[in-house]
Amino acid sequence: MLLLVPAARSTAADVAAGRAKAAQCAVCHGANGIATLPDAPNLAGQSEIYLAKALRDFKSGARKNEMMTMMAAGLSDADIENLAAYYQSIEISVKQP
Amino acid sequence: MLLLVPAARSTAADVAAGRAKAAQCAVCHGANGIATLPDAPNLAGQSEIYLAKALRDFKSGARKNEMMTMMAAGLSDADIENLAAYYQSIEISVKQP
Repeated sequence: MLLLVPAARSTAADVAAGRAKAAQCAVCHGANGIATLPDAPNLAGQSEIYLAKALRDFKSGARKNEMMTMMAAGLSDADIENLAAYYQSIEISVKQP
Repeated sequence: MLLLVPAARSTAADVAAGRAKAAQCAVCHGANGIATLPDAPNLAGQSEIYLAKALRDFKSGARKNEMMTMMAAGLSDADIENLAAYYQSIEISVKQP
């Protein structure tokens, strides 16, 4: 069974700016949001709301991870919204095994 | 550009047991690992290592979330490994916007 997951469209956030900013995330999370390391999550197609909360939680210290605490510290609120909008915009599909 | 992401195979963990256990996750994370709620992440195709750590962190309290703290409390170590293996086994593909 192949299911297409429609990528929800963002309103306020800037997907293009997020895509540019995401260059610094690509080493671990992949240029297309598919992680290159087993301890980093795929971000492609993930919900904007979930992703923005994760980044805010890393920035505030509510969620802890050595790498992400460091990376999130340098992000503005707009960066966070744009990054979340960018990763949400990547369309994914799933195939049940 | 369409990229197929090969689902890595698990060794020790039991994908079938994980799939059965995942019934309790489906309300929020979807029967196929694609979330039904914007504040819940997609789990399909996510790395076993990442997922197992997330569940252990929710269970230990290192990571906090009202719903997940409650759900993870009832999971054994084997449940966690099996669930992580199941969600990793779901093949995903991504299409750059």
